[in-house]
Amino acid sequence: MANIVDALLKGERWAIAKAISILEDDGIQAREIVEMIFKHSGNARVIGVTGPAGAGKSTLVGKMIGVYRARGFRVGVLAVDPSSSISGGAILGDRVRMQEHALDDGTYIRSMASRGASGGISAALRDAIRVLDVAGFNRIIVESVGAGQLDVKISSIVDLTIVVLNPQTGDSIQAIKAGLTEIGDIYVVNKADISGANALYNDIKSLVVDGRDAIALKTVAVTGKGVDELIDAVEHSLSKKLSNGYKEMMRKRVESELMDIILSMLSKVVQERIKKEEGGIIEKVLKKEMDPYNAAESIVAKVIRDE
Amino acid sequence: MANIVDALLKGERWAIAKAISILEDDGIQAREIVEMIFKHSGNARVIGVTGPAGAGKSTLVGKMIGVYRARGFRVGVLAVDPSSSISGGAILGDRVRMQEHALDDGTYIRSMASRGASGGISAALRDAIRVLDVAGFNRIIVESVGAGQLDVKISSIVDLTIVVLNPQTGDSIQAIKAGLTEIGDIYVVNKADISGANALYNDIKSLVVDGRDAIALKTVAVTGKGVDELIDAVEHSLSKKLSNGYKEMMRKRVESELMDIILSMLSKVVQERIKKEEGGIIEKVLKKEMDPYNAAESIVAKVIRDE
Repeated sequence: MANIVDALLKGERWAIAKAISILEDDGIQAREIVEMIFKHSGNARVIGVTGPAGAGKSTLVGKMIGVYRARGFRVGVLAVDPSSSISGGAILGDRVRMQEHALDDGTYIRSMASRGASGGISAALRDAIRVLDVAGFNRIIVESVGAGQLDVKISSIVDLTIVVLNPQTGDSIQAIKAGLTEIGDIYVVNKADISGANALYNDIKSLVVDGRDAIALKTVAVTGKGVDELIDAVEHSLSKKLSNGYKEMMRKRVESELMDIILSMLSKVVQERIKKEEGGIIEKVLKKEMDPYNAAESIVAKVIRDE
Repeated sequence: MANIVDALLKGERWAIAKAISILEDDGIQAREIVEMIFKHSGNARVIGVTGPAGAGKSTLVGKMIGVYRARGFRVGVLAVDPSSSISGGAILGDRVRMQEHALDDGTYIRSMASRGASGGISAALRDAIRVLDVAGFNRIIVESVGAGQLDVKISSIVDLTIVVLNPQTGDSIQAIKAGLTEIGDIYVVNKADISGANALYNDIKSLVVDGRDAIALKTVAVTGKGVDELIDAVEHSLSKKLSNGYKEMMRKRVESELMDIILSMLSKVVQERIKKEEGGIIEKVLKKEMDPYNAAESIVAKVIRDE
């Protein structure tokens, strides 16, 4: 493990790949890696990119990489793919549009499975961000396949969230339904060269941006139009956040990470105890002799230490 | 509270509405209601209906109500709407298509907010099902706005899951991506009168149904075509489940409900303790003196009673 971490701190690509795979496996080694790299982490800024399927997120992220590279940044990309809650397998997203950066040493692109539980991906994602961070990538883009609770979850992990919308598919309604209107720092109307783009841009401005500390932009990701301005806006927004309330944001983020880890640890403990001792309680609920809340409470009383 | 429960057991509509509102508020009264009605519950069969937006779920559910009513069943419908994770408000789905049943005493239709946490909606949904159950509805349909982890969660609460798909929008791919291929007992290709329906039906049969204990059907919800056959299939599948492994399924369901409630209770306890005593640990993590896993473990050790 020490070998992997040493290589990781030198930015060696095989070590990055190995480390993230270990994190995805979520075994005892995952924890060892985090214990060893944690103190080196915290230098990268992390940008979430979300939005409905077909909005052009991957194309846009590809162009964002180009602009960041031209400005001298090293860019890591983590693409969180939807995956089955039962088999746990991931369906890889279309990474083809990012292939032009595949041979660039200043870019690292990786897909991650979202697994079933949102707790699962949160932990793996936070730790994968740390891996890229200590490997020397100073801008990390997390692209998620949008429009769900996962995106809301991810928005609490990244420093800044970009919501990408598509004028072709009534995305303002979709966005509202999915709760995307409340998580974005920057709203991008992509495919701005087609009809409907201005209407969507105006919708978004009035629905989302006015009265909130968010901005709206237009891009044409396939040609790269507007992407330079987008990166300007991202950087501007990041520095504003860093100078304003950043410590409080970090504290909340640590609290929320600790809660996730603690609940996952407690969940294992409780599951074991239920199996070992509390089978009788389940029988009582099945026979309707005890309701679920009183049953749960009696188990909690046995598990929790008195103050 | 006893008044509400008395009226509920007589099937009075004001009491149903009041009880579900209390459940949504998730206060101490919610628990009282469940404690009082739990022993009367367990008579209804519960059918989940999910699938991507625009597949025609509401229209189909409206027609399913009609067939069930004609067969003498009393039908409750709970429509789980997506909602903001931040404001907690629900955007009501289009219930217009079910309005024809609004004046029928044997039908009760209600929208519920899905709230942010999937734990939250699971608890409120399980308990709302109990409310309709003890109020005398013997078939309860849970319609969810599809294609997310919420649906996978709901499928573990209901007795049987129907996945509704739309030939117009490449739904076989969407369904696979969203994990819907693994939760359905019955796959319905709706809008079966338009082109693409047979191709989708064949896709679904080969992708999903073959080799699994699931079936595929075609409907045209707007005309009601195929809905009678759908209800036949639902009832057949329900009786098969009831006679085959039902006890084991119920035991797993109780286990999973207890885990949800226990984790929600533990989460509150831990959050309080973190606030009261463990602020120092968060500081240590912020200063990178301690990694999140060791920090979480030290809190867990203080919270958990030794065996």
